[in-house]
Amino acid sequence: MILDIISIGDELLIGQTLNTNAQWIAKEMDAIGFRIREQITISDSKEHIVSTLDNSLLKADVVLITGGLGPTNDDLTLPVLNEYFCGELIVNQDVYKDIEQLVTRRGFEMNENNKRQALVSSKCKAIRNKKGTAPGLWFEKGNKVVVAMPGVPYEMKGMIETITPWIKEKYTFPEIVHQMVLTKGLSESKLAEILTEWEANLPTVIKLAYLPSPGRVKLRLTSVGQNRAEVQKLIDKEVESLTKIIPDNIYSVGNKNIEKIVGELLRQNKQTMATAESCTGGNIAHLITSISGSSDYFKGAIVSYANEVKINELAVNPTDIDNYGAVSQQVVEQMAKGVLTKLNVDYAVATSGIAGPTGGTEEKPVGTVWIAVANKNEVIAKKYLFGSDRQVNIERATVAGLSMLYDLLRG
Amino acid sequence: MILDIISIGDELLIGQTLNTNAQWIAKEMDAIGFRIREQITISDSKEHIVSTLDNSLLKADVVLITGGLGPTNDDLTLPVLNEYFCGELIVNQDVYKDIEQLVTRRGFEMNENNKRQALVSSKCKAIRNKKGTAPGLWFEKGNKVVVAMPGVPYEMKGMIETITPWIKEKYTFPEIVHQMVLTKGLSESKLAEILTEWEANLPTVIKLAYLPSPGRVKLRLTSVGQNRAEVQKLIDKEVESLTKIIPDNIYSVGNKNIEKIVGELLRQNKQTMATAESCTGGNIAHLITSISGSSDYFKGAIVSYANEVKINELAVNPTDIDNYGAVSQQVVEQMAKGVLTKLNVDYAVATSGIAGPTGGTEEKPVGTVWIAVANKNEVIAKKYLFGSDRQVNIERATVAGLSMLYDLLRG
Repeated sequence: MILDIISIGDELLIGQTLNTNAQWIAKEMDAIGFRIREQITISDSKEHIVSTLDNSLLKADVVLITGGLGPTNDDLTLPVLNEYFCGELIVNQDVYKDIEQLVTRRGFEMNENNKRQALVSSKCKAIRNKKGTAPGLWFEKGNKVVVAMPGVPYEMKGMIETITPWIKEKYTFPEIVHQMVLTKGLSESKLAEILTEWEANLPTVIKLAYLPSPGRVKLRLTSVGQNRAEVQKLIDKEVESLTKIIPDNIYSVGNKNIEKIVGELLRQNKQTMATAESCTGGNIAHLITSISGSSDYFKGAIVSYANEVKINELAVNPTDIDNYGAVSQQVVEQMAKGVLTKLNVDYAVATSGIAGPTGGTEEKPVGTVWIAVANKNEVIAKKYLFGSDRQVNIERATVAGLSMLYDLLRG
Repeated sequence: MILDIISIGDELLIGQTLNTNAQWIAKEMDAIGFRIREQITISDSKEHIVSTLDNSLLKADVVLITGGLGPTNDDLTLPVLNEYFCGELIVNQDVYKDIEQLVTRRGFEMNENNKRQALVSSKCKAIRNKKGTAPGLWFEKGNKVVVAMPGVPYEMKGMIETITPWIKEKYTFPEIVHQMVLTKGLSESKLAEILTEWEANLPTVIKLAYLPSPGRVKLRLTSVGQNRAEVQKLIDKEVESLTKIIPDNIYSVGNKNIEKIVGELLRQNKQTMATAESCTGGNIAHLITSISGSSDYFKGAIVSYANEVKINELAVNPTDIDNYGAVSQQVVEQMAKGVLTKLNVDYAVATSGIAGPTGGTEEKPVGTVWIAVANKNEVIAKKYLFGSDRQVNIERATVAGLSMLYDLLRG
């Protein structure tokens, strides 16, 4: 079963908005068993919508479209699809009631635009919108399905929930298994060199991909079959041989992020953690708390952007800041120990660096970051030199801090 | 001048990785004056790369491709493009030296994969990679250009810097002006109703789009012309009439995010801020510190995930936590006042809520968030009811907190 994903909207096309919808849909549909052929982003233009749909329907069984379903004049998806499927625009009473309820609950009265949102095509099944006013549209043509959903992410997600059972009822799927193996400490080319023989001997039904990112490389093994357990077994066997080749470089089998793995280790050990963040500005805490249930092991953070906060809240020695600078081993170690004591936790991570793009010196250029991890017995500090991009430096320092914590947790 | 952006990679297609490259490239190229026609994401497959390129070259002047340039067997972009343009693979000596330098600096020796990365097509100009090993490829065919770059974001960004002058030299561009107007307090349909007449009277050269997101609607006015100043003047005139229609609902003209606007207000006033975060887990601090120069006004944050941190670090009364719960007006107000005093700042934002997906009760369902803002004279608290998605709740609470701070700053 082949799927195309079409995203409509000038804001996506010109880069004003990041297209998170296509990724989210792809992940959900890949899990069902679709082979995703293309993701296409196009403008709010009738000709372009029609030609893209024509092209997708030649090859895909299902086409999922997001965007352009709003009540304003720049939204064209409903009239264009209605014409494409030779329908008429009619008021759907269920949808009308949904909108009325939502608008009333928000304390407004129905206006003309709200009423217009109850219009759907006579040729489609309406998909009720639990979180907004625009209904989704489900068209069928032979054995093919075209679905249009709003571009607002949480409205779209609600509709995917609704239509997933409809899709599963209409089609049968093979089982697709992706197995991630997360490695650290080897570059992509070094890793490929070490794995040459293993890779050459992989069964042809297993596809291997190298996914590099700063400081780590993910390996993805993919296979397809009719029986999930058998496909998984085949992959597991290869992962086992892989583990024998690079035992020290694999930190996770599965697609768990480092923040999740660290959290699970802490929960198993019934231990707690906190962070003391300068250059990462709260991003480590944010990542840790993005995991549901993190309150079991994460007590809190002290973001000490100003030196006075480092001194007053984390008991950093002001003379050390004067002598060595805020971005130094001395300071970052004291930050880690400071938050460990202050918030009374078992583990702490601390960061202090120059995220950039300004603030660098010859001795400490932009991208210099000191990171420390500590528990009651020891404190380990390490200096990193990342790049010149502020957001990338924040992200890399965050991942490096969590990796150091992982190593300390694992002993 | 028309541009297509092709992203190659199964990890993008199946949703394992978010495609930030296409957005970033689109933004840069839109600013130069390209009309971006399509963004397409496809798999690492020879047939698909060729058919997509064929199709793009029918309509676009320039095609920018990312991904599939690595040293491993799943990377096909170089051999496929080389064959497409009927070239031969040859070692580029400059590129070889670049790689050797990079590999040596990282403390490794050149291996076979590294050497292989110095191969480029005889039909292309190599684009040197300052941040990694894979060179980029610049092909010309008549008046059309096809560029391939690595998928690693910071390597790609370095190459865009290199090729932007090459593109500007080869083509002439019209001036495109996008003007964003950020509104709050009106739904998309209500806003459209109020603006019906203004919208109908817009000059036809100006295109209007409504971009809704939780709690706010962005309006985008776009126009194109030969003279930038004239295009801008035309748009400014319309923004002026718009401002007269909804003076209280516009919080920014321009595309500045709320964290940037808040930061600028604080800097102008020479004032400082801090946050006390429970359910947002440091995300407000993270957003504020994502702005370069934020150390001028942001002193720090106390992320008080555990109640004991609320009590010990923010002086929240434990009896109030017992009586009203951690998610309550009483607690969030004390958190805001606590961090205001503790970090000695002029403004504070505090959050306490149930991000979900678990932890809700009948009285306080998942999505319930109390937010408080404070300065020396007052503290204002407000209760929100967001949705059921953890990440969305964190994000909405973050934006709501910053909006409340904005309102307080503006008086």
